[in-house]
Amino acid sequence: MKGVDLVRLSREMSGYAVDVRRYLHVHAEPTSREFETVRFIRCELEKIGLKYVNIPDGGVLAEIDGDGSSHSSILLRADCDALEMTEAPDNAAGKKICISSNPNAAHMCGHDSHTAILLGAARILAKMPPNSIRGKVYLLFERGEEGGNCIYYVMKYIQLHKLRIDSCFALHVEPDLPVGTFWIREGPANAGNVNFEIRLYGKGGHGSRPDLANNPLDCFVAVLNQLKDVRYKYIAPNDLITYNIGSVHCGTRRNIVPDMLEFSGTARFYNVEAGGIFKKKLRDIVDKCADFYDCVVEYRVFSGPGLSVVNNREAARIAADAVTEMYGNGCLKDLPISLGSESFAMLSNYYPSVMIRLGVRNEERGMTAGLHSSHFDLDEDAIPYGISAHLAYVMKYMSVADRAIPFEGFAGDVDAVLKLTNRPVPKRYDTM
Amino acid sequence: MKGVDLVRLSREMSGYAVDVRRYLHVHAEPTSREFETVRFIRCELEKIGLKYVNIPDGGVLAEIDGDGSSHSSILLRADCDALEMTEAPDNAAGKKICISSNPNAAHMCGHDSHTAILLGAARILAKMPPNSIRGKVYLLFERGEEGGNCIYYVMKYIQLHKLRIDSCFALHVEPDLPVGTFWIREGPANAGNVNFEIRLYGKGGHGSRPDLANNPLDCFVAVLNQLKDVRYKYIAPNDLITYNIGSVHCGTRRNIVPDMLEFSGTARFYNVEAGGIFKKKLRDIVDKCADFYDCVVEYRVFSGPGLSVVNNREAARIAADAVTEMYGNGCLKDLPISLGSESFAMLSNYYPSVMIRLGVRNEERGMTAGLHSSHFDLDEDAIPYGISAHLAYVMKYMSVADRAIPFEGFAGDVDAVLKLTNRPVPKRYDTM
Repeated sequence: MKGVDLVRLSREMSGYAVDVRRYLHVHAEPTSREFETVRFIRCELEKIGLKYVNIPDGGVLAEIDGDGSSHSSILLRADCDALEMTEAPDNAAGKKICISSNPNAAHMCGHDSHTAILLGAARILAKMPPNSIRGKVYLLFERGEEGGNCIYYVMKYIQLHKLRIDSCFALHVEPDLPVGTFWIREGPANAGNVNFEIRLYGKGGHGSRPDLANNPLDCFVAVLNQLKDVRYKYIAPNDLITYNIGSVHCGTRRNIVPDMLEFSGTARFYNVEAGGIFKKKLRDIVDKCADFYDCVVEYRVFSGPGLSVVNNREAARIAADAVTEMYGNGCLKDLPISLGSESFAMLSNYYPSVMIRLGVRNEERGMTAGLHSSHFDLDEDAIPYGISAHLAYVMKYMSVADRAIPFEGFAGDVDAVLKLTNRPVPKRYDTM
Repeated sequence: MKGVDLVRLSREMSGYAVDVRRYLHVHAEPTSREFETVRFIRCELEKIGLKYVNIPDGGVLAEIDGDGSSHSSILLRADCDALEMTEAPDNAAGKKICISSNPNAAHMCGHDSHTAILLGAARILAKMPPNSIRGKVYLLFERGEEGGNCIYYVMKYIQLHKLRIDSCFALHVEPDLPVGTFWIREGPANAGNVNFEIRLYGKGGHGSRPDLANNPLDCFVAVLNQLKDVRYKYIAPNDLITYNIGSVHCGTRRNIVPDMLEFSGTARFYNVEAGGIFKKKLRDIVDKCADFYDCVVEYRVFSGPGLSVVNNREAARIAADAVTEMYGNGCLKDLPISLGSESFAMLSNYYPSVMIRLGVRNEERGMTAGLHSSHFDLDEDAIPYGISAHLAYVMKYMSVADRAIPFEGFAGDVDAVLKLTNRPVPKRYDTM
């Protein structure tokens, strides 16, 4: 099937995908608790007539068998969770087309469109004439991408059933790219992270006698002073790394010495070794300062260094060829690498994978706000571009029978990944 | 009237004063909003048959005329407000006798007993035989002592009506002193303060790009680092001063750069000049750090240097003589000077005054917790000691006809005090 056909089919599927996107957008559900969203996806898959399994606390994994002329299998992934936040009703130009009806959840990271695009692609793939698809295509509707780590339960399933996966593909909407363009890069595409939430316990008292108490704020200031040295003193200058202290909370009244301080933050990097050094130094600093200031430390969260998304060179080239054949070389745009984190890192560490970015910016229509902003809005005209990119990756990959990308994936099972990245087994929400 | 009579009369009045104390304790009302408490006090004064004025948002000022053989007039002051906190039902030994029925207010600073003691003293003074009291006695039931600054409205009234006041007397319960003892000191008895609540505004953003944002936490850490120098670098070592950062609040999520940080604190000192230096340096540091870190500063509270309570030498001697004549020299105990603040500072800066401390500790009964602790509890056996101290101060002071203590009080009116101490006109709660 030629590129022109994929573009046409994708455009014809737009109406359906836009409806799906709006439905999901209005009925946003927070990370790991996408119960109605999952029901909706299953219902759509049943209408299409696709086989699927509902992986508890993981997501929905559907399957399209090819004609068997190739043993290759590709996994296309869309996430489906929303953020725990309240959506603003307007974008930079005026009212949005639709907004979340749930004041506690909003699709401000565009996962509604990811799922809509993949369902649109699924409908097209399912109706393709015999012999169009040589190998197998998995469609993963992943839950809990925003920190829920639900991909753990998906990987558990994949490893338990020894599913063969030769390559993974995903896209993410990108408000810094105009509609009709893509960003595709070899190598790191998203950052790994170290996340921390730490409590320092001192001793409370009356604000007029700090000498009789022990304000944990003194310890905290010492930690932050030391932390400023880590980047230049211990990490190679060519290793990208940054960090943020996102919150500090301590005390209630000016005349009371607080007895506890809680702070949280994140570090981002591409080289997991650099992340490891940061984490070790942070721990050393906190422990030593706590010792010095006679505070007790509680590491409530201390995860990582987590994996970064690494786009496989050949997978990225296949993806780039797939979209440029449809839209010309001009459709590829450059962007600085993101330092956001992505659960797709898991798949990209096991299989040769690529995650591309899909332009959804439209300045005239006011669709310019960044991801995670309450004003985020996307131009639905981007949806057919997204559908066609999925289709074209499948076609391009399978144009070579039994294509196998040389790749050395992570050797251990998914529990080994948890251990490596110091993350707990993700919380379960499904009734077992 | 002799000391032995005052002791006996005070003991006989104990039952009444204990009942009052328990009633007020159970019906605690927060600072500046002591509406029912005021109604109760007025009702008691009417039962006694005393003249009084209800000063809106200030308190109740009652008056007992003497026999006119002296022009002297003494003001006895009790505060009547509770703290905005929840009382714990137990002290160190077990259940308390009574606890606040208001989950949002509790008499954890003992003002219930101050008012009960003064009402007890009022009943005795009102029934004294003719010629017992030479001059005039004012009884002030002051509202909003705990930061409400209601004394402002009382002083407004006193200055408007040009009331003559020759000396002021007050007591405060002291959980570090055993029942039956007093602490009386010449000179500073409570600290002056500088209070601050400051916001630093930076620029928010995604936690993976602190370089594109401006975390106000960096500015805050710089402020705290500089602040540590002030005490040794700018303030004389013999000037007592201390400070506390009581709260810091900033940010919500680890992967978002916060755009605002709010911190609050207090400094305590006896020498108002030292307090002034601290305040000026704090302001310099915050402004310069904000400039350096490109933050915007909002001084939401920046009051002081406030006045400290200074016990007049002669007034303190009269008070000490008054209690030792009743209870012997052994009743006076030493304690470190308090660094708490006290609204009595206002009166002590206008008139030769003394504030004494009344022992309420009873280890056997578990009454050991400090003021402002939710476990604070006082031994009601201290109440007759308190009543008699008020009576004895009046008698002792007026034993000399037209006694006048040489004193250079604050020259300006109470609005000049507000200006000097950088405090706003206190919030009003009474319906005007």
